[in-house]
Amino acid sequence: MSDSRARLEKQIDFIIEIDRLKAIYRRTYLTDASRFENSAEHSWHIAVMAMVLAEHANQPAVDLSKVIRMLLIHDLVEIDAGDTFAYDTSAKTDKLEREQAAADRIFNLLPEDQAAGFHALWDEFEARETPEACFAAALDRLQPLIHNLYTRGKSWKEHGVHKDQVLSLNRHTAEGASDLWDFAAEWIEKAAAMGDLPE
Amino acid sequence: MSDSRARLEKQIDFIIEIDRLKAIYRRTYLTDASRFENSAEHSWHIAVMAMVLAEHANQPAVDLSKVIRMLLIHDLVEIDAGDTFAYDTSAKTDKLEREQAAADRIFNLLPEDQAAGFHALWDEFEARETPEACFAAALDRLQPLIHNLYTRGKSWKEHGVHKDQVLSLNRHTAEGASDLWDFAAEWIEKAAAMGDLPE
Repeated sequence: MSDSRARLEKQIDFIIEIDRLKAIYRRTYLTDASRFENSAEHSWHIAVMAMVLAEHANQPAVDLSKVIRMLLIHDLVEIDAGDTFAYDTSAKTDKLEREQAAADRIFNLLPEDQAAGFHALWDEFEARETPEACFAAALDRLQPLIHNLYTRGKSWKEHGVHKDQVLSLNRHTAEGASDLWDFAAEWIEKAAAMGDLPE
Repeated sequence: MSDSRARLEKQIDFIIEIDRLKAIYRRTYLTDASRFENSAEHSWHIAVMAMVLAEHANQPAVDLSKVIRMLLIHDLVEIDAGDTFAYDTSAKTDKLEREQAAADRIFNLLPEDQAAGFHALWDEFEARETPEACFAAALDRLQPLIHNLYTRGKSWKEHGVHKDQVLSLNRHTAEGASDLWDFAAEWIEKAAAMGDLPE
């Protein structure tokens, strides 16, 4: 087999493997509350959100293309590691280890140079230090918040989540997009006042 | 309400509206054949494919960021117009009209400047004239092809699709990425030889 053919076959294998992200279900309901959403749909949604909300990034020179690429691949590790519910503190203890192992396996399906590039992009997202990673993380938090607010706190109620947990888990949204966090915090107060989120 | 607040609320309304793309089901099965995939997942998948397969674009200077943004929004019109099965020629007669009306409604939920930008990006994709649109269209055709090939032609068999239809519908893949089309055409021949795709 030629080198270029072997390279393409690796790329196709990766593309087939990542189809499995469509079977990883989150605890977030669709806005019509009909079912949980999966991580592939979620990744699509926040990538479009990046296009729409780019002007709200704290850092005006944020590289939107990088933010979008980060968001598109940020959840691929869940194919092996599963989705860890944001409010499940016990599952979070070995999350990093499980996800690192997943990243090593899944990204290494790609040709070497691409594996390194995808892995570096995922590491950058996880470290949440660059303006792009902070903004991407803000969108990743804002989307389930919108879904919860829109479904009258359905998932929060089912998991006994309280307002102080929501505020503390999502507060880092402000590091990437402070005006989006102001908006979200106002909505959270409204949800609490309406009884959708226990104090 | 301040102008900036009104602008953000329009953006959030759009973000909530597009959640409905997750309920638009295509005729393509997931690679494990467990269910049909929806258009939000499909859009995510081909956007990641653009990242992986960019080097195969016929035009080496293709703007990858634009290709990805195009792919992320290319199916939003289906929220109103539904998914038109690629091999259903009768449904295709009024497809353009239905999708134009959908684009006008959905993109205009956004602030005016963004609505114009998103609409222009969708128009460019549909016209399939620029290198970015040709490459995006190639990926949009290649993905369901891979799913069909991987599920032993499940959707093709269910809809009585023949090899000459698959070749003629997908041939324009070559305009965006000729080596991806060579690869796909070889797979199509193999599928026919294995009885997964009637001659």
